[in-house]
Amino acid sequence: MISSDYTAALCARDSDAKILLLIIDGLGGLPHPSTGKSELETAHLPNLDELAASGSCGLISPLGPGHTPGSGPAHLALFGYDPWRTVVGRGALSALGLGVDFAPGDVAARVNFCTVDDGGRVTDRRAGRISTEKCAELCRRLESIDIPHVSVSVVPEMDYRAAAVFRGSGLGDEVGDSDPQTTGLAPLALQSRGADSERTKEAAESFLRQAAERLRGESPANMVIVRGFGSYPQIPQMEDVYGLKAAVVADYPMYRGVARAVGMEIVPTGSDLSSKLQALTDRWPHYDFFYVHVKKTDSAGEDGDFNGKVRLLEEVDAFVASLRDLGPDVLIVTGDHSTPSIMASHSWHPVPMVISSNWSLSTGVATEFSERGCLGGSIGQIPSSSLMALALAHARRLSKFGA
Amino acid sequence: MISSDYTAALCARDSDAKILLLIIDGLGGLPHPSTGKSELETAHLPNLDELAASGSCGLISPLGPGHTPGSGPAHLALFGYDPWRTVVGRGALSALGLGVDFAPGDVAARVNFCTVDDGGRVTDRRAGRISTEKCAELCRRLESIDIPHVSVSVVPEMDYRAAAVFRGSGLGDEVGDSDPQTTGLAPLALQSRGADSERTKEAAESFLRQAAERLRGESPANMVIVRGFGSYPQIPQMEDVYGLKAAVVADYPMYRGVARAVGMEIVPTGSDLSSKLQALTDRWPHYDFFYVHVKKTDSAGEDGDFNGKVRLLEEVDAFVASLRDLGPDVLIVTGDHSTPSIMASHSWHPVPMVISSNWSLSTGVATEFSERGCLGGSIGQIPSSSLMALALAHARRLSKFGA
Repeated sequence: MISSDYTAALCARDSDAKILLLIIDGLGGLPHPSTGKSELETAHLPNLDELAASGSCGLISPLGPGHTPGSGPAHLALFGYDPWRTVVGRGALSALGLGVDFAPGDVAARVNFCTVDDGGRVTDRRAGRISTEKCAELCRRLESIDIPHVSVSVVPEMDYRAAAVFRGSGLGDEVGDSDPQTTGLAPLALQSRGADSERTKEAAESFLRQAAERLRGESPANMVIVRGFGSYPQIPQMEDVYGLKAAVVADYPMYRGVARAVGMEIVPTGSDLSSKLQALTDRWPHYDFFYVHVKKTDSAGEDGDFNGKVRLLEEVDAFVASLRDLGPDVLIVTGDHSTPSIMASHSWHPVPMVISSNWSLSTGVATEFSERGCLGGSIGQIPSSSLMALALAHARRLSKFGA
Repeated sequence: MISSDYTAALCARDSDAKILLLIIDGLGGLPHPSTGKSELETAHLPNLDELAASGSCGLISPLGPGHTPGSGPAHLALFGYDPWRTVVGRGALSALGLGVDFAPGDVAARVNFCTVDDGGRVTDRRAGRISTEKCAELCRRLESIDIPHVSVSVVPEMDYRAAAVFRGSGLGDEVGDSDPQTTGLAPLALQSRGADSERTKEAAESFLRQAAERLRGESPANMVIVRGFGSYPQIPQMEDVYGLKAAVVADYPMYRGVARAVGMEIVPTGSDLSSKLQALTDRWPHYDFFYVHVKKTDSAGEDGDFNGKVRLLEEVDAFVASLRDLGPDVLIVTGDHSTPSIMASHSWHPVPMVISSNWSLSTGVATEFSERGCLGGSIGQIPSSSLMALALAHARRLSKFGA
């Protein structure tokens, strides 16, 4: 379940030192063909560059050479878990992040409102990106769905997205998606493996049939598609493993979810950086470890918006100065994975990382916080799942192994 | 038991080539805040710098990112064993290093003479650092201790330190320490796990009761505390694994002990560098592999004595020239772990390392033997447990794997 850095559990010791981990989603990039400079190299980042020049720099790899992670595995690696073996369904992460009633034994799935034509083919996987308010209204309409021996609750997330939680006896989560991932096709028939997951599949089929009835005549959101079935995750908690009282400052439910899955408490925050800073300031005395998440850089990368990502990085740079002023004993800035704008997708490229603390070793070579700048740092290239041990070490929260 | 470098055993082949491994204890450091230079960067090290400029440089990590090792795991990693899984109690290392009668089935513990007050509370964990002679006299006084079905021998080590070897049938080593690690508290009650270790615990309790009687009225050493229970280690031996006839040149019992645990023979030596050189010269024809240990650099680091560590490194530098003159086919200089003076403790930071041989690859970048200098070397950052395979390779003592 846990990587070799679960060894951290053997060595964790108490301390007052605070660790602040800033995750800039999709941080890493690649050079723009016309300038030869990556997003980080193009952006003006005086605070991050200063941090890189004085801290320990390196690059972290979420899954090892060549493998591109989704957000779930990428974050589980950051928190010290083996991302290949600690698998949590995306639906479970959403449900956890939304803070809905979701408990061991339940299975959650992500729900997208969509548009289907008279032949049942999906014409818009996002139902014209209906508003969150409309989504909430439609979720309420699905409340009356009745499935034998299984209760289901449907909770709005953002825009056309929602989450469904199935509760019943002996429900497995090995159920495939109905989302065809493209338009022009009918939703996929659900597949399952094993008797427990067969029960979940039957409940989900009943849910989909009844949802179609209740949404008939609605426009544009006249159907739902489901994906990412996942049981309530039972993962060793950060307080037990690392002795850390940890909090998450993130606005997207999915990131709150992965943080809750490892035992962090959710600090309420808005999506802008100033409200995140306010949330941190308010709760600063109450936790040992803060995970702060910035989403928009990844979205810009996925949209192929090179200049947009550059601008967002510059905004984050100013935010970094404020984080420093909070006085964490250890400040780490990195990303969950790379999202090069020229690829318009997540990628496998290792992610720049800096650790700022009293026990850091700057090299004089890594003077720029970037993919190439961090290559000259003292940490080298390490698995993302080794980062937590380094975080604890720099906070002097790990004791010696062996006499 | 053994790391992936046990693969070396598959490929070991015979050769006349000699390997000399110089371990400078606690070698790695961090920059002094007032100069920005580490101990190695501050010291004048013409021989080590020349070695770095002409050899293959890199950094080795005993336990992976973030984890700080004790001396036992750090050395087992250097010798190619998995330090997380090859656990040898410190008492066993002491007993091995002292060369006392210690055999499979026996359990050894470290013994400190200490001072307790009338209430039984420890007031000095080192009994005023009594002399080694006094320690020997008190050990003799403990010889008359009589425990049913178990024999115990107590052997002086240095100053207030001794080792006890328990011999009997079915003795386990999962017994906790009585050392409270601080003053003002009574020694801890011994804890054990399992029936075999329960037997050891009962014997040790009897030993402690009788020791208290025999030392009553003595000042300052009127009691003992025990710690680091460990069975005689049964670890694959270097001759079998690597085909090496190996010797250790170290003055501290603990380092002789870890070397003996992996099958090295002990070459008698004093603590100064000239007597170590003499010991090496005398035995040079008789072994394939020499492990030479220098302790004082670590002690200076632990004392927070930055300048003292710098001076000691300069002494070692002159010693390196003499080692080179012996003409080893492979000369490796590194440390077991880092002990930055500014932390006054062992740390997790990777340790500078250089391999000098006919098959080394210098880079022209690593021209200084230091934490940052070695970052520019051709080896990169590797686990300490990979070092033995590199040592054998550079001695052409590993054959090709596969046709």
